[in-house]
Amino acid sequence: MSDATITVLQGDGVGPEVTEQALRALRAVEDVYGHSFAVHQGLVGLDAIAAEGAAISDATFEMCARSDAVLFGAVGGLPAGGGPDGGPRPEQALFRLRKEFDFFANLRPVRSSEPMYGASPVKPEYLKGTDMIFVRELSAGLYYGRLESVPGKPSEIRRTGRGTEAVDTLLYTEQEIERVVRAAFEIAERRDRKVTSVDKANVLSSSVLWREVVEQVSHDHPAVDHEHMLVDTCAMELIRDPARFDVVVTENLFGDILTDEASMLTGSIGMLPSASLGTRRVEGGLFGLYEPVHGSAPDIAGQDRANPVGAVLSAALLLRHSLGLEREAAAVEAAVEEVVRLGYRTADVHESGCTVVGTREMGGLIRETLVRG
Amino acid sequence: MSDATITVLQGDGVGPEVTEQALRALRAVEDVYGHSFAVHQGLVGLDAIAAEGAAISDATFEMCARSDAVLFGAVGGLPAGGGPDGGPRPEQALFRLRKEFDFFANLRPVRSSEPMYGASPVKPEYLKGTDMIFVRELSAGLYYGRLESVPGKPSEIRRTGRGTEAVDTLLYTEQEIERVVRAAFEIAERRDRKVTSVDKANVLSSSVLWREVVEQVSHDHPAVDHEHMLVDTCAMELIRDPARFDVVVTENLFGDILTDEASMLTGSIGMLPSASLGTRRVEGGLFGLYEPVHGSAPDIAGQDRANPVGAVLSAALLLRHSLGLEREAAAVEAAVEEVVRLGYRTADVHESGCTVVGTREMGGLIRETLVRG
Ligand SMILES: CC(C)[C@H](C(=O)O)[C@@H](O)C(=O)O
Ligand SMILES: CC(C)[C@H](C(=O)O)[C@@H](O)C(=O)O
Repeated sequence: MSDATITVLQGDGVGPEVTEQALRALRAVEDVYGHSFAVHQGLVGLDAIAAEGAAISDATFEMCARSDAVLFGAVGGLPAGGGPDGGPRPEQALFRLRKEFDFFANLRPVRSSEPMYGASPVKPEYLKGTDMIFVRELSAGLYYGRLESVPGKPSEIRRTGRGTEAVDTLLYTEQEIERVVRAAFEIAERRDRKVTSVDKANVLSSSVLWREVVEQVSHDHPAVDHEHMLVDTCAMELIRDPARFDVVVTENLFGDILTDEASMLTGSIGMLPSASLGTRRVEGGLFGLYEPVHGSAPDIAGQDRANPVGAVLSAALLLRHSLGLEREAAAVEAAVEEVVRLGYRTADVHESGCTVVGTREMGGLIRETLVRG
Repeated sequence: MSDATITVLQGDGVGPEVTEQALRALRAVEDVYGHSFAVHQGLVGLDAIAAEGAAISDATFEMCARSDAVLFGAVGGLPAGGGPDGGPRPEQALFRLRKEFDFFANLRPVRSSEPMYGASPVKPEYLKGTDMIFVRELSAGLYYGRLESVPGKPSEIRRTGRGTEAVDTLLYTEQEIERVVRAAFEIAERRDRKVTSVDKANVLSSSVLWREVVEQVSHDHPAVDHEHMLVDTCAMELIRDPARFDVVVTENLFGDILTDEASMLTGSIGMLPSASLGTRRVEGGLFGLYEPVHGSAPDIAGQDRANPVGAVLSAALLLRHSLGLEREAAAVEAAVEEVVRLGYRTADVHESGCTVVGTREMGGLIRETLVRG
C-alpha cells in the first residue's frame, strides 16, 4: 500500500478541468488497489500572481518539495494589468519548478493507436507502428537565457542610442547534455534500442558539442543504435515516417517544437502526457512533475470541452515513475485505451461514428472502466 | 527581351542534377520568349573547398555580385579530412552569400495541389486550400552567433577547467526584424491579406521584441489581418489546419524548421523552391539567390532519383523576382503543374497509378511542356 503525498497545481485555463479528471483516476486507483494518497492543492499561474504576487509562491514551492510528486495542469495567459515584460508571468512557475528541482529530463511518449487513426490529420498507413518517446532537455538552453537568477546566461532587450536589440543565449555545458543523453540511452535499453539525437550541428556550436557527447555516451550502450538528425529533417521525418523513431533526445526548445508537432500523430495535443524528472529519489522512485503537453487553452476554458486524456495519462506516468506503481499505471493507460476504442471522444479528436463527450464525461468513463477493472 | 546574367552554383550531392533541369527550363524560356541569358557557372561547397580552399572563393563571390541573380543547387557533406569543427565547411558558402548580400527575406511558397494530395502523408481533407508563403528571416539570429566575422555575436565551444560548454547567441535588432516583417506585410497585401507572425514570446526576449515590431508595422497595413502564434503551436497548426495560413513570417531557425515540416503538405521537400532577397536592385527587379529547399541528399546523389521540381520552381521565382518576367515565371509553374497532373512523378512523390520517372526525364517533360506552350 502506498501512502504517497501528491501536490496538485491546477493552474490556468483548462488546467483545473483536466486535472480534476486526472484526480478522479487517481482516486479510483486508491479504491481499487487499496492505496491512500495525501493530496494537497496549491495555487499556480494567474491565480497565484493575483493572490500571492508570484506565479508560484515559496510556500507552494515548499509544499511541492515535501511531496513525492507534483501533478500540474497548465499555465498561461496575461496577468490582469501586466504585459509580457512587466511583472510576473504565469509561465515563470513552470520555469522555477523545472529549474530549482533540476528536472532535466522531460519524457513525452507519443503513441498512435489504431482506433484513433481517424482522428489524426496523417494518413493511417503512415501512422502504423508509431510509438516513440521524446526525452526533451528541460533545464537549460535558450529557456534560461532570460532568468536573471542564472549567472552567465544573459538575455535581455537593450534600448541603446543606435536602436533596440534583443539577445537570448543558448548555453549548454557538457554535464547538462550528458545527463539527459544518458537518460535517453537508458530508456532505449528498455525499449527498441534506438536513439535519434536531434540537433542543428551544421549551424550551432551547442549542437556540435551535443553530438560529441552523444558519441561518448553511446560507447557505454553498445546494444543501442543511435543516429544524429538535423532538427529541420526531424520536423519532416516525424510526419513522413513516424514509425522510424523509438527514443528521440533533443535540447529544450527543439523538444518543445517537435513534441507539439508529433502530437498531430495522435490526433490532438490533448492526448499527450509528460513527466519531468531529475535525480532526487522518493520512496517509490524519482520525484517528478507530471503535466499534459497542452497549454491552458483559454479559448475553451470552463466549457467542459478540453480533452482530459493528456492529464489522466500524466497521472499514469506519476504512478509509474514517482510511486513505483507499475500495475496501477498500466491499468490507467488500459482504461484510456478501452474508452477510446469504444468510440468516446472529446471534440478535438472527434471523428464520424464516434460519440462526442465532454471533459467530465470522458473522465467519468475512464474512472468507471478503471473501477470495473 | 531580357539579356540578364545568371550565376549558377550547382554545389554538392544532388545539387548538379537538379540545377541542370532548372537550367533546361530557363533555356526553354529563352527559346520560347526570345530572351538571351548569360549563364556563368562557379564552384561552391565541397568542390570549392577542394579546389580553392574555401566553400566559396572571392572570385566566385564577385561573379555572383556582377549577376542579376544566383541559381543555387545545394551544399552539405563533410570535406575530405575535415570534421565539423576543423577547416571550412560547405554550408559556409550559403552563410556568406546570405550575409554579405544581406539577403534578409527568404521566401518559401508552400502550395498543395489536388493531383498531388495522394503523395502527402496528410489526409486530402486537411490539405484542401493549402497555399501559404513563408517569409523566413535569413540574415541574423542563431545562425550568425557563429561567424567570427560578425562582431558582437559570439558563439563558441569553451573548454575550461570546470568542463566544456558551448554557447550560441540569438540576437536581433529592431531594424533586422522590421525589414523582414515589412516584406511580409507587403507580400500579404498582394495575397489573402493575412500575416501569421511566429515566435516564442513566452520564453525569448528576442521574440518579445519581435512581437512589438510586428505590432508597429501592422499599423502601416490596416487592410492586412495579423496574428501572433507560438512556434510550438505553429508546428502543430501546420498539420492540423494548413489552409488557415497565408503569409507566415518568422525568425531564421524557426523558419528553417517549419518550412521543412510544411514540405510534407506537398508530399516531399523536393517540391519546394525558395528565393532569398535583399534590397539591392537589378534591372528586372531585386538581386536574389534561388535554391530548392532540399539539401544535398548525398545518399541519392548521382542516381538520377532526385526531384528537380524544387529547383525548377526556384528558376521560376528567379524569372519573377530578379528578371521581372512574370509571364515566363507563370509558364514554368504551369508546366510543372501540368506534368504532375499527367501523373509523372519522381520516386519521392510516387503514388499508385502514377508513372515513376528519373530526374532527367522529369526535367525533360517540364521542358517539353514549356516549349509546346
Ligand atoms: C508554457 C511554455 C513555457 C512551455 C514550454 O515552452 O516549455 C510549454 O510549451 C511546454 O511545452 O511545456
Ligand atoms: C544547409 C543549412 C545550413 C540550411 C539552413 O539551415 O538554413 C538549410 O537547411 C536551409 O534551410 O537552407
